Amino acid sequence: MADLAQLIAQLGQQARAAARQLALAPASKIDSALNAMAAGLIAAQADILSANAADVAAARANGQTPALLDRLTLTPERLAKCAAGLREVAQLPHPVGGVLREWTQPNGLKLTKVRVPLGVIGFIYESRPNVTVDAAGLCLKSGNAVILRGGSEALRSNTAIAAALVRGLALAGLPAHAVQLVPVTDRDTVRLLGESVGLIDLLIPRGGKGLIETVVQSARVPVIKHYDGICAVYVDAAADPAMAEQIIVNAKVSRPGVCNAAETLLVHQDIADQFLASVGRTLAARGVQLRADPRACALLQQAGVPAIAATNDDYRTEFLDLILAVKIVDDCAAAIAHIGAHGSHHTDTIVTADAATAERFLAEVDSAVVLWNASTRFNDGHEFGFGAEIGISTDRLHARGPMGLEELTSYKYVVRGAGQVR
Amino acid sequence: MADLAQLIAQLGQQARAAARQLALAPASKIDSALNAMAAGLIAAQADILSANAADVAAARANGQTPALLDRLTLTPERLAKCAAGLREVAQLPHPVGGVLREWTQPNGLKLTKVRVPLGVIGFIYESRPNVTVDAAGLCLKSGNAVILRGGSEALRSNTAIAAALVRGLALAGLPAHAVQLVPVTDRDTVRLLGESVGLIDLLIPRGGKGLIETVVQSARVPVIKHYDGICAVYVDAAADPAMAEQIIVNAKVSRPGVCNAAETLLVHQDIADQFLASVGRTLAARGVQLRADPRACALLQQAGVPAIAATNDDYRTEFLDLILAVKIVDDCAAAIAHIGAHGSHHTDTIVTADAATAERFLAEVDSAVVLWNASTRFNDGHEFGFGAEIGISTDRLHARGPMGLEELTSYKYVVRGAGQVR
Repeated sequence: MADLAQLIAQLGQQARAAARQLALAPASKIDSALNAMAAGLIAAQADILSANAADVAAARANGQTPALLDRLTLTPERLAKCAAGLREVAQLPHPVGGVLREWTQPNGLKLTKVRVPLGVIGFIYESRPNVTVDAAGLCLKSGNAVILRGGSEALRSNTAIAAALVRGLALAGLPAHAVQLVPVTDRDTVRLLGESVGLIDLLIPRGGKGLIETVVQSARVPVIKHYDGICAVYVDAAADPAMAEQIIVNAKVSRPGVCNAAETLLVHQDIADQFLASVGRTLAARGVQLRADPRACALLQQAGVPAIAATNDDYRTEFLDLILAVKIVDDCAAAIAHIGAHGSHHTDTIVTADAATAERFLAEVDSAVVLWNASTRFNDGHEFGFGAEIGISTDRLHARGPMGLEELTSYKYVVRGAGQVR
Repeated sequence: MADLAQLIAQLGQQARAAARQLALAPASKIDSALNAMAAGLIAAQADILSANAADVAAARANGQTPALLDRLTLTPERLAKCAAGLREVAQLPHPVGGVLREWTQPNGLKLTKVRVPLGVIGFIYESRPNVTVDAAGLCLKSGNAVILRGGSEALRSNTAIAAALVRGLALAGLPAHAVQLVPVTDRDTVRLLGESVGLIDLLIPRGGKGLIETVVQSARVPVIKHYDGICAVYVDAAADPAMAEQIIVNAKVSRPGVCNAAETLLVHQDIADQFLASVGRTLAARGVQLRADPRACALLQQAGVPAIAATNDDYRTEFLDLILAVKIVDDCAAAIAHIGAHGSHHTDTIVTADAATAERFLAEVDSAVVLWNASTRFNDGHEFGFGAEIGISTDRLHARGPMGLEELTSYKYVVRGAGQVR
């Protein structure tokens, strides 16, 4: 325990020192490092894949699920994609140094609000070793040092990956401690990272709800959470039925396991009859189980579409699966009320041809991303044009919704005077 | 205990419901409420002053310090100033609804990043009853509900003030629970507010370091801290001595008890001889005790200026008093290193006529506000033109430096499409 505390404190101090250097490193050096890290990954492919094979074999022997084994497994193609990701990040504009605002006060003081790195970011995640590469790249590009604490199943893979990344840093003349992997995965390391006041400026947990809750329970440093998305599509009376069907099918089926997938379909009572029959058939054909309120259940079953009765919990559940909660609502106000009471303030869509109704929905639904006539799946840093994404924040402070490079920065005020006093 | 928990939960739920209404309230209604609250304060002057007199009498009987008694005391003039403050806030532009960014993606999606309220703000503070008015006004103007937890010494005053404010809300047709005072001041209420996950979106503790640390230790909701300012003025070799003297005197003497007052004077060795003698005489004449490193101590004493030996702790102390730590440094790099090692990343100034040296200082000193040829005292929301200030954040996340109305908001993304899917 004392040893673990010492280890985390040492990583924190090393990261703090590296962060000071990174904050002043020229942008070109950071991009060189990102490219060298990409080359380092490819050069170390044999080491990384063999470490990964050992992780996968151990996970299989431990009876892990096929889904976890898939997330854990690296292939030459997946590794090449990681390296390409670093090269893409190198091409993005640098957030640090960007001027957010510039103005002059009546007393002649010239003020500039300028982006600076956050400092040291702690990143806690689960079994995907590619996250090690992505997080290191995004934190470095935004001028931050990062301490990575991956899952125990991926420790051998992450160790080999981190070694390759650090070689890239060294080649570009950046401090090796800019990217550090916690070399053990004891549960206590999560708590200790959260208690690293003064050493870690932001802790980002990404993974299951249990992991995030563990972090939140013990953290004394700021945390940005990536909680669940209970996202709704509301199909208004004035919706184009074909558009509505396309949107809900895309939102539910295109990638059911992600946080911006739809979990709830709300349908205006005036069009429920025809619309539910048609969309129900389509969704059922795509393997979606429908859990519907009594009115919708009756309509669906009448149309020959299999549906089961929804419980109240179904409207508050992130299924992450081919399951959809369905409900008929009286009107847009009822849809807004349902989303406010049952949703997770993540992503919600209205489909309607009526602009006034749409604008009301957009104004009144208090979610990170609210859409009109578009799929919930667009809540995504790449789709927003951010070029990269470290995750989707479910918090309201600092960053809400997709977090790109700018969301990994802070700012400072630079004030230039001519001897002013108060 | 169970009762207290129930009380705080009830305040939180009421605030959440009020916040939902406030988020949709027209700006004109909010401004009407602010003006009605101002009128309410004046109308209730007799009640408020009599409650305040009881607080002051009790505090005096408890042997409180004259400084606390002064902070606690309300007068007709002070109350009128509070009311005027609310009217000024009513005149400020509304942050909510402001468009932060607007762009169109290649697929035709139109994205708008728009300011929204944070939701429910918990505000924990000590003995100044005027903070009750200021915090209520700023939170309301930014569309947030607020739960106020003031100090026990001011409970009678705060209760009378809150009642007057709530009458103003009601007159304007806004929910009474938009401004709530925790009606008891048990220590546990601080912990319970910090544990109000899902009910409080941001907790702002303002007061002594002890109070803030208590909040940080137990809080599970996001906190923005207002820690201490160990602010330095560095007088470079190329400084105009008269300007440098004016700046350090202003920074130290104009209001020694505030966080943006200077606590440390760093002087370049090349000008230390003459500059220290002159500035030392001026500061000593203004009642400032100088605590200096051996080199500076010798120079000061040689010039007949009283000075005592500084300990290392003196360079890490927020004196909030007429005490100044003084040190001679080899050059600007040494000043930057001293500030990085001993300062609190709050506010630091360089005085120099050399632009290159100044720009190096501005770039390398990692503080919320860094100034060139201006007093540290300018780190202030009013001086920045924000119109109002809830405090000065010493955090790096969400808000750094002066916090005005914009810093009390979050944002959401509104996406308008034409049927787009991924």
